[in-house]
Amino acid sequence: MTIRFFDLCGVSEAHRFSPNCWRTRMALIHKGVAFETVPWRFQETGKIAATGQGRVPVIEHDGRWVHDSWVIAGYLEDAFPDRPSLFGGAAGRALARFVNDWADTVLNPGMARFAAPGVYEWLREEEKPYFRRTREERFGTTLEALAQERAGRLPAFRQAIEPLRLTLSAQPFLGGAAPLYADHIAFGAFQWLRCVSDFEVLEGHDPVAAWRERMLDAYGAAARQAPTRP
Amino acid sequence: MTIRFFDLCGVSEAHRFSPNCWRTRMALIHKGVAFETVPWRFQETGKIAATGQGRVPVIEHDGRWVHDSWVIAGYLEDAFPDRPSLFGGAAGRALARFVNDWADTVLNPGMARFAAPGVYEWLREEEKPYFRRTREERFGTTLEALAQERAGRLPAFRQAIEPLRLTLSAQPFLGGAAPLYADHIAFGAFQWLRCVSDFEVLEGHDPVAAWRERMLDAYGAAARQAPTRP
Repeated sequence: MTIRFFDLCGVSEAHRFSPNCWRTRMALIHKGVAFETVPWRFQETGKIAATGQGRVPVIEHDGRWVHDSWVIAGYLEDAFPDRPSLFGGAAGRALARFVNDWADTVLNPGMARFAAPGVYEWLREEEKPYFRRTREERFGTTLEALAQERAGRLPAFRQAIEPLRLTLSAQPFLGGAAPLYADHIAFGAFQWLRCVSDFEVLEGHDPVAAWRERMLDAYGAAARQAPTRP
Repeated sequence: MTIRFFDLCGVSEAHRFSPNCWRTRMALIHKGVAFETVPWRFQETGKIAATGQGRVPVIEHDGRWVHDSWVIAGYLEDAFPDRPSLFGGAAGRALARFVNDWADTVLNPGMARFAAPGVYEWLREEEKPYFRRTREERFGTTLEALAQERAGRLPAFRQAIEPLRLTLSAQPFLGGAAPLYADHIAFGAFQWLRCVSDFEVLEGHDPVAAWRERMLDAYGAAARQAPTRP
């Protein structure tokens, strides 16, 4: 049965930007399983009440509800063992968790400060107060100040992603010769910014930028074709 | 033929502390291959001239010289394919590189400031001037000041290893149920400090501390039995 994928959307239902939802979307595409996207907006907890929590990504498959992008990836791997692997075996799965934890604590928090002002612009008017309040609490500053600080934060951000840069200087993808779920994890952060803003965090010669292009081209350029403006 | 492993030693030849040499030592033990250790001291470049560079770890195997801990790990994996795998397959190998790059840019540079004062104490007198000069240049401060700063640096260090902590909260080893080379990479940094100092960087309840104990117990407690005082 077709998987239903609850994905955060912006002012247009076709406009998706959530980094963790991009992890799941890339995983679904990688697996080549049939899925339909259910547009989801901040605070629509009723739609995903079966998961007992209030955040996406969420998938529903044959009556089973699964939430949390890492748990969803594991679910897809186990539910579709004959489809292309997301992890490349037990060791790859164990080590992808480290990439996931690095992205959750270093990459995504760093990217959030670049992406938040753009996300705000592309939300529906009725969602903006919720987003502004929760993000300004989280960051301890206004969205306008975040936008002003972006250029000044670039050096520290670029330094923070040095492990990613070194690995992608030595091999085409985190997963090696072809992308694996570890790539989806990291790519989600860059696609987040790309979908809401023209602000560029990478220098043109950065090996991470070249990898981002490869990820945009992967799977029939699925991510490149995603709307970046509503 | 027995591998010769050139390993940095302290005032006693039995006293080994280099983090990257510990990566290699653990990899050799994991593979279960015969090796003998050749004690090596800072600036003994003549002993490893065949590698065209001046740092250890270095191995010599059947006339082939290999340097750089990451390259050595790959060499051992390929030269002994029937022995226990260091990577658990191609994906595990690709992702272990990310752990290596994270350790080289985050974990080891952080640990170096804790370990350097202790290393200095355990060197032979004639090596001390070289070590002091190069490290004080690198850190931009004196070894004595580094020792004074250690406690103040703990919060930032503990925060920097949050990805390691999260992964090791969820699974026994970076490699999953059993250690792989990714574990050797990270463990090398902790063994470095342990071999030269009583200074403790981890809180007792830290999942990283529990993993460190598991690593000390692994392979017949090989790392636990290593001399920590000359």
